[in-house]
Amino acid sequence: MIDAIIENRVIAGLVQGFERSRRQVNGLHESDAELVRLPGSNTVLALTTDSIAEEINTGLYTDPYLIGWMMVTVNASDLAAVGSEPVGILLNESLPENLNPDFLSTMQRGVRDACMKSQLPVLGGDTNTSPSLHVGGTAVGLIPDGRPMTRKGCRPGDVVFATGTLGSGNGYALSQLDSLDCTMAYQPLARLPEGQLIRPIASCCMDTSDGVLASLDQLMRINEVGFDIDLRYGGALHPEARQLAQSTGLPSWLFLAGLHGEFELLFTVPSVNVDGLLHATSRQGWVPIRLGEVIETPHIRLAHKAGFFILDTGAMRNVFARFDGNLSHCIQQLLNLVEPCKT
Amino acid sequence: MIDAIIENRVIAGLVQGFERSRRQVNGLHESDAELVRLPGSNTVLALTTDSIAEEINTGLYTDPYLIGWMMVTVNASDLAAVGSEPVGILLNESLPENLNPDFLSTMQRGVRDACMKSQLPVLGGDTNTSPSLHVGGTAVGLIPDGRPMTRKGCRPGDVVFATGTLGSGNGYALSQLDSLDCTMAYQPLARLPEGQLIRPIASCCMDTSDGVLASLDQLMRINEVGFDIDLRYGGALHPEARQLAQSTGLPSWLFLAGLHGEFELLFTVPSVNVDGLLHATSRQGWVPIRLGEVIETPHIRLAHKAGFFILDTGAMRNVFARFDGNLSHCIQQLLNLVEPCKT
Repeated sequence: MIDAIIENRVIAGLVQGFERSRRQVNGLHESDAELVRLPGSNTVLALTTDSIAEEINTGLYTDPYLIGWMMVTVNASDLAAVGSEPVGILLNESLPENLNPDFLSTMQRGVRDACMKSQLPVLGGDTNTSPSLHVGGTAVGLIPDGRPMTRKGCRPGDVVFATGTLGSGNGYALSQLDSLDCTMAYQPLARLPEGQLIRPIASCCMDTSDGVLASLDQLMRINEVGFDIDLRYGGALHPEARQLAQSTGLPSWLFLAGLHGEFELLFTVPSVNVDGLLHATSRQGWVPIRLGEVIETPHIRLAHKAGFFILDTGAMRNVFARFDGNLSHCIQQLLNLVEPCKT
Repeated sequence: MIDAIIENRVIAGLVQGFERSRRQVNGLHESDAELVRLPGSNTVLALTTDSIAEEINTGLYTDPYLIGWMMVTVNASDLAAVGSEPVGILLNESLPENLNPDFLSTMQRGVRDACMKSQLPVLGGDTNTSPSLHVGGTAVGLIPDGRPMTRKGCRPGDVVFATGTLGSGNGYALSQLDSLDCTMAYQPLARLPEGQLIRPIASCCMDTSDGVLASLDQLMRINEVGFDIDLRYGGALHPEARQLAQSTGLPSWLFLAGLHGEFELLFTVPSVNVDGLLHATSRQGWVPIRLGEVIETPHIRLAHKAGFFILDTGAMRNVFARFDGNLSHCIQQLLNLVEPCKT
């Protein structure tokens, strides 16, 4: 089931024949960060690496400050999703020889600010010259009690939450790549304190770096469960995404369907623990957004004001695996995929 | 003094304004891997990241197996240089959409074999599509007693050794990039067991990933000492590099001067510990190659059969920082730099 997704198949193909570490706690696809138990200790090390080449190559990220900010945030967010404490980050920067010095210093300012916000000091890195700009990082965290959150563990009846409003990532992508006459701010913050707080309470967690529906789809395949998501009562969609939906006439679920995420944490909590969660989060100063429920049937059912839909989220993800740079074409394919499923 | 080197200045510029971690043991430039003390423990975590974009872009690496092998080895070698135990590696692979599947599977075979040889299992990674092939990794190691080797600590009178013969990296680069009619094998092995063995004995260590003279130059600047290197008695130069020197008429020191290294460890040992070193290495089945001595005067003095030279290694390194793809031009500049220093 996990292999129905092109990206999952590509990854499985790449690691074929590789030996796994006996110290590694998580299986393939099962965690946002790699989890390694340190010898003679309870402590689990969390490691993750992510680069943002595609976002630069497709023109999604052009602002150097955003590029620097995201270089850190995409990695910090994976640490957040396993509930780890941040330790630091290593950076990889391949820079064109003729890169404008102002561009570079603004990018480094984005890195610095995101590092400070995420309490993730730069430990080191590697710099190369290369024909095109290519940047990324590897973040390191610690889970002292050795009990990370992973993508695995939710059961039917668990309640699904997000750490914040959704749709800003895809809203930004639309405003940046499409011919729509709109702009949308985008500077997501990795949810590290939130991840550490929910770690003992949540039954599974994944960040929405690839968008909400892709994350739900992956959790569905890993846990062999389904999700009942209810967007009818508002509040889940980011205000600017909601506005964009209204002005463009695009359905609100489309802002959850694109692969450019908002870097919130999507997590499930056994219903008996929901009161405890809400108590803890209110003390930390935030309110989790209730999205729905884990169900037995392995599909994703979405309720929004236009009705109920069973979404073929696998096919939706694969639309983007074949992305040719034409976003309008992608959107049309997504709309086509959903219409016949209307129930 | 460290800033006389263009590369050092570039790095210092990039990290300007970044806060450093209180847990980090090593200063900037002072270690091949970043060293982070784990809270509530003696253990030091070793982290390093390196990509091989330039080696691919310049045509130095074209064989997919070598590309995969080096993706692991460049990182494993940094772990070796701090004397750490290997834990694992994360890979970053940005692959062109139209990459030949055979190329990819051969590259992955190179990765797998190097990982097995270095006992460095692949923990995870990140895959992107990108216009050009761009690969790298981040390796993680542990130093359980918390006493890493670093580049800092040698004193005048210490003896300088290498873990193996030298010059194969630059010999390979010559055979690959220049119009010489020769081939040279190249598949260096990260010296992880050797690094762990010498860690309690060595006063400083650095791998020769950037070539021998660049490593000596960096150690000179960090330790404010000099080096007296004696190549007269042979044995230090890799047999194939020696052959290439003979057939081309190029001086043997040139094989230490290029920036494409052989990934041996260059290390110093207080003279009282030399017997202990030789005893330990013979039990591990290898013989360190004695290169010379640490001296007070901060310069690099080379004795070889053509005489004694004081090398301006700083200027030599900067020749490559301005490398324009023309290797013959570089070699001529190096030859020009050395001739006037002949003593």
